[in-house]
Amino acid sequence: MEINAVKSKSNFKNFKKVKNSIRILSLVILLFTSNLMVFATPVNSAKDIKVKNIVELNKAVKNSTAGDQIILANGIWKDVQIRFYGTGTKENPIVLRGETPGKVFIEGASDLKFGGNYLTVRDLHFRNGYTPSSSVVSFKIDNNTIANNCKFTQCVIEEFTQPDRDVSDHWIEFWGRHNELSDSYITGKSNFGPTLRVFLDGNENIYNYHQIVNNYFGPRPRKGGPHGETIQVGDSETSMAPSHTNVYNNLFDQCNGEVEVISNKSNFNEYRNNVFLESEGSLVIRHGNYNVVDGNIFIGNDKSNQIGGIRVVNTGHWITNNYFYKIRGEAFRSAISIMNGIPKSSLNRYNQVTDVVVAHNSFIDCESPWQLSVGSNVSQSAVLPKSEIRSARPERVLFANNLIYNELPDTHPIVNYDKVDGVTFKNNFINNVNNSEVKPAGLITTNFGVTKVSDGLFTLKENNREVYHGFDFENITKDLFGNGRTETNNSIGAIVNPIKGNPLLVDRSKYGTNWYEVNQPKAPANKIAVSTAAELVRQLAKANSGDVILLKSGTYHLKSSLPVNKQITIASINSKNKAKLVFSSEKTAFEMQPKGHLILKNIVLTGNKAQNAFTTLDQLMSKAYDISIENSEISNFKSVLEVSKGSFADNISLLNSKISNCENGFMLNKEKNDGGDYNAEFVTFTNSKFDHIGGVILDYYRGGYDESTIGGNIKMEGNTIINSGKAQPENILIKNRGIVNVSITNNVFKNNPVKTIAVLWGEKGQTPGKNTIEDSGEFKVVQNLEMKLMY
Amino acid sequence: MEINAVKSKSNFKNFKKVKNSIRILSLVILLFTSNLMVFATPVNSAKDIKVKNIVELNKAVKNSTAGDQIILANGIWKDVQIRFYGTGTKENPIVLRGETPGKVFIEGASDLKFGGNYLTVRDLHFRNGYTPSSSVVSFKIDNNTIANNCKFTQCVIEEFTQPDRDVSDHWIEFWGRHNELSDSYITGKSNFGPTLRVFLDGNENIYNYHQIVNNYFGPRPRKGGPHGETIQVGDSETSMAPSHTNVYNNLFDQCNGEVEVISNKSNFNEYRNNVFLESEGSLVIRHGNYNVVDGNIFIGNDKSNQIGGIRVVNTGHWITNNYFYKIRGEAFRSAISIMNGIPKSSLNRYNQVTDVVVAHNSFIDCESPWQLSVGSNVSQSAVLPKSEIRSARPERVLFANNLIYNELPDTHPIVNYDKVDGVTFKNNFINNVNNSEVKPAGLITTNFGVTKVSDGLFTLKENNREVYHGFDFENITKDLFGNGRTETNNSIGAIVNPIKGNPLLVDRSKYGTNWYEVNQPKAPANKIAVSTAAELVRQLAKANSGDVILLKSGTYHLKSSLPVNKQITIASINSKNKAKLVFSSEKTAFEMQPKGHLILKNIVLTGNKAQNAFTTLDQLMSKAYDISIENSEISNFKSVLEVSKGSFADNISLLNSKISNCENGFMLNKEKNDGGDYNAEFVTFTNSKFDHIGGVILDYYRGGYDESTIGGNIKMEGNTIINSGKAQPENILIKNRGIVNVSITNNVFKNNPVKTIAVLWGEKGQTPGKNTIEDSGEFKVVQNLEMKLMY
Repeated sequence: MEINAVKSKSNFKNFKKVKNSIRILSLVILLFTSNLMVFATPVNSAKDIKVKNIVELNKAVKNSTAGDQIILANGIWKDVQIRFYGTGTKENPIVLRGETPGKVFIEGASDLKFGGNYLTVRDLHFRNGYTPSSSVVSFKIDNNTIANNCKFTQCVIEEFTQPDRDVSDHWIEFWGRHNELSDSYITGKSNFGPTLRVFLDGNENIYNYHQIVNNYFGPRPRKGGPHGETIQVGDSETSMAPSHTNVYNNLFDQCNGEVEVISNKSNFNEYRNNVFLESEGSLVIRHGNYNVVDGNIFIGNDKSNQIGGIRVVNTGHWITNNYFYKIRGEAFRSAISIMNGIPKSSLNRYNQVTDVVVAHNSFIDCESPWQLSVGSNVSQSAVLPKSEIRSARPERVLFANNLIYNELPDTHPIVNYDKVDGVTFKNNFINNVNNSEVKPAGLITTNFGVTKVSDGLFTLKENNREVYHGFDFENITKDLFGNGRTETNNSIGAIVNPIKGNPLLVDRSKYGTNWYEVNQPKAPANKIAVSTAAELVRQLAKANSGDVILLKSGTYHLKSSLPVNKQITIASINSKNKAKLVFSSEKTAFEMQPKGHLILKNIVLTGNKAQNAFTTLDQLMSKAYDISIENSEISNFKSVLEVSKGSFADNISLLNSKISNCENGFMLNKEKNDGGDYNAEFVTFTNSKFDHIGGVILDYYRGGYDESTIGGNIKMEGNTIINSGKAQPENILIKNRGIVNVSITNNVFKNNPVKTIAVLWGEKGQTPGKNTIEDSGEFKVVQNLEMKLMY
Repeated sequence: MEINAVKSKSNFKNFKKVKNSIRILSLVILLFTSNLMVFATPVNSAKDIKVKNIVELNKAVKNSTAGDQIILANGIWKDVQIRFYGTGTKENPIVLRGETPGKVFIEGASDLKFGGNYLTVRDLHFRNGYTPSSSVVSFKIDNNTIANNCKFTQCVIEEFTQPDRDVSDHWIEFWGRHNELSDSYITGKSNFGPTLRVFLDGNENIYNYHQIVNNYFGPRPRKGGPHGETIQVGDSETSMAPSHTNVYNNLFDQCNGEVEVISNKSNFNEYRNNVFLESEGSLVIRHGNYNVVDGNIFIGNDKSNQIGGIRVVNTGHWITNNYFYKIRGEAFRSAISIMNGIPKSSLNRYNQVTDVVVAHNSFIDCESPWQLSVGSNVSQSAVLPKSEIRSARPERVLFANNLIYNELPDTHPIVNYDKVDGVTFKNNFINNVNNSEVKPAGLITTNFGVTKVSDGLFTLKENNREVYHGFDFENITKDLFGNGRTETNNSIGAIVNPIKGNPLLVDRSKYGTNWYEVNQPKAPANKIAVSTAAELVRQLAKANSGDVILLKSGTYHLKSSLPVNKQITIASINSKNKAKLVFSSEKTAFEMQPKGHLILKNIVLTGNKAQNAFTTLDQLMSKAYDISIENSEISNFKSVLEVSKGSFADNISLLNSKISNCENGFMLNKEKNDGGDYNAEFVTFTNSKFDHIGGVILDYYRGGYDESTIGGNIKMEGNTIINSGKAQPENILIKNRGIVNVSITNNVFKNNPVKTIAVLWGEKGQTPGKNTIEDSGEFKVVQNLEMKLMY
């Protein structure tokens, strides 16, 4: 059933008039009955009102009173802008809910805004659409109609993302006070803008005590640029405000949007008992002071160097009872990253770290978990203005009662990027010898034992009672699991024995709705044999994501582009006698669309030099795509890959393949806004051959002085590049300006008439690897690249 | 009686050891008696221990326990460094007090530091000395011995100021938590550094809830440079810290140190019910946010344009129930000054003003009391870096329920230095027509009447109940006098009728100690007739401050300098036949010493061209001096006045006098540190004649881009300057670089062979006045002076 939205002006303006009338009436009553107190409570009719379209919904909202339930009929609600206003009470909120959880879908150009007091929304599923305003859910209708004590709970927001990734929005905007997002599943935002944002502009929005609890924040894909946070609380301009937002008991599962999974930018917030599971980023106390980060679990599982822990800027934070497991990120992404500040920093840059306590945390099998003076960049004074130089070292910082355990010794638990003179270490314990440059007496090597309680969860065999009693430490009353720390039972590290029960590091069942299955069962992949071009076109269109199309040997003449909008494998049945796809299509052989993931195996692709092998859509590349080429041959194209500005590839990989006779190779160079964005995350060329590429074999660009992202990756190993670059006007073979991670080793460069193979960025640790170079110019290294300032 | 100090190392280190032992013991007790709680309380012997010297004092401190009183014997305690440590209780503090209030004096190189818990000091009088450390009184002995719940009360600190004004100290340093300065009289600090300073560096010192109550802050002289605050709470580097200092019920009487009488630089402080009496400066919320300024009284009495009210920077302040009487300061010193900020300001500059509420204040006979976007300096972009340009206008600022009453209409109650787009006005009332550029509907002209309750105190004849109910306004529960604001009885302005009793704006008896008489009776001025040089020298040395030396007609040959260290008038008995002082002294005729105030009337001074007429001491000019020359003649000196770097004259005035045949005139040009300091505050030449001055008639310098001070004053009116400047190498007659207030009108400049009379600073409103100029060069105007940045 699809319910058509009927355009209707919402009635919250009348609501405001009514509110004012009530106010005046109340005043009058108070004035004339000063001895006899009169409380005018509304008669609680507590209606259930079922609505089938937006007109009925608006009418129901307009007429609702405390205790009412407005029930959205099952089906798809398309293009609806819900304005939910009114005045409930603590005991009798006004509820707006789906008829049957899991059967009410909000789709199309839709959003939902709260205004009033004690309003609850539940059991809605947002999908197949995006907001036409700046937010999907907002706790404010306008500046005069702000929500307080309102709740968005038991809902799903799934890939409700803008068609254009460059268009900015938030999925949940917090305004007002005492609002709540709970028990919801939120996933798949791929456009510009934090998923959830707390606003503090205006006195109505401070001291907010918002509750963000028990949610399942599912995967947020890499964004390839900044502004991909999952939660942002405040901003630099309101970073002086007392916020008091509570983020408790949430799961952050692969929230990979950018370097800040959570970006704290205000004061007195509390982050407790959340699990960060393989999320490529950190909980970052970016601005604001006196925040609490307690009892959180950070799990890296050694999956990637991008998975971090807690990064600290500013003053007065307490980081206690946290548990870090197999975190191997470094610098910005280390388990604990204490930054250097900019002296007298401007409001939106980096204040010095002072008065921070890091106590009673456990670091299990992490690599160099304590990194100090991170971001120190005095060496870049030549390319950065003074106002960007982070030279103010941490002051009055205390590390105490922490536990570092490594199954295999971690000889450098501390990494320091500057002198360490403002950090005190007291009663921290490690089970191997510390060979770091910094060897404080307060990091003590002893041979303690640990017990494995469950997957990834280790505790001390016996409590270590050598606990340092620092200033205000009596306020650390509980451990990771909420068990008491007492004078008689306390321990170093995040956990005090005995642990009750048999806790799990991650129990996915604790988070999100009580009705939505996060891990939908996958259809098994079909294998579809194809022997003609027409069949290939038809089956490609019909296939389910994950299917494999198997081509018989032979030649396939394709006059039109093949669109790819799902995961599809195209492979030759006989790898010895590869199928040959010959394209006479106009613009491109394959058109990569959002979520397209093309895997070519044992295929020969040939063009007529008039088209590219792969291109993206020109616009609305709302989600990432992937290209994986294996044991294949590509020849006679203009470019191998041409992309559009807003497009983003997560992975481009080439393995055991040959590219020849093309004008250019892979052109990931259209995102030139110099705001830190770029067109692909990972570009990997392995054991492949480039022959007679007229221009560059790769042009991959990232501009702007930004540190929010992984920053792009080039890995070239075992390739041979010959006879290329002849027509390259800049005399260069690989353009990689601004890409952070570049590794080019064990390749052969031969007979390429260029001056430069590639320019490497010394400050990012890029060095010319071991390559065989013959008549092919050379690698150049520039220590400090001058980038455009973004701030 | 003078008690000699005996040098003795204080024993607080042992105290700490004992404290630790007790702690360990307590732990052991707790560990072994988990079921049976044991509290080891000290036996309260409650001793009174009278001590006569520092050795006895140290011993008594070492042995003291809760309830003890350590009594300092009457007399002068010289060169004592008191370290008062120990552990009292709330009910039984340890008390250190003077034997008889008013008879125990702390003198010489002395100080007092607290460390511990519940310690009280009372009945001491600090005078005739200065601290050898960085503070006179400190609530901290060292970083491990900080005071909590300690009290300094019923004490006097009087001119306990550093001999060298450039040496920085504080008289009271607050550290720790819950400490108190109360019922004390504090006056006469003339050196560098705020009188009282609250420190927030380190978690031990935040959430401090210090009480600064019922004190009498007596006159603090003009400093002629920054760092002359009476109270500073925090600093820019700790301006993010929650402070919660309470400054209640204090009198600030002529606290003229600099533009900030109080400099707030932290969060959540409260300034309530203080009286600012003719203090040349403002209560300035310079850094930090969410501060409360409630129920204070600002009295200008039209005495000076330097007397201000409240100046606001940053976010979230509530300015309520304040009463402003005859404040005529403008810009930085207006009754309410809301500043423009610097976009994304660095930590130590100016943040934008946002979310500020100015409500229920009364402005009685003030001039243009509301000044908005103060400090806007976009016009100075040429001489200032971008990081100094205050272009961020106030945002989300609310003026509501304020009352402006003028006996004589103030046609421009609002002055705006930039566009006003972020300020909302609601239900403010004024009794004359508002002809300001900004004419908000929320500033309503009505012809209301007022009642005079007492001197300077006016209330509305009838409450004006048209009160705007803004967000959180229900928290404004009381008026200026603590009377309730209720739904049934409320009013516009600071005061709700009926007022109880007959309150006074200023009741000096409410402040300071219960034993010290602030207004000491003055000895009547003696008139001393003198007829010989020797007698003059002898009587000058003997005279009391305020005395008048009357010279018979005749010539006095003086071979030595005459020192002036008090107020002294030297006058001719016969003004028609003036006494002539002929100097052959080496360096100077008169040597101005600290607190010297020389008044010359009807005197002829002549030198031999080898010495100056007036000089200051070369160093240790601890306090200001004044020179007042009337109906006198000065000739044949090198310079009329030569000063030393650290010296400061409050007033230099010349009236109906003649200066001739000198190399130079008044040389107030030695303070060249370019930190905003300068050598004199007011220089006034009236109806006088300068003839044959070889160089400049005045060289008066102030360097550094600073706004903390009045900035120096030149007023020249009705003078004749002839035949001067012939030997001036820069071809200029008056050097006044950096002086803020310059008025040169109705003078005659004739036959002075210079190019430039003076360079005027356009941005400060300096314009060439109406002067007669003949063969004397011209005035130049430079719009924006390039000054040295100090930050």
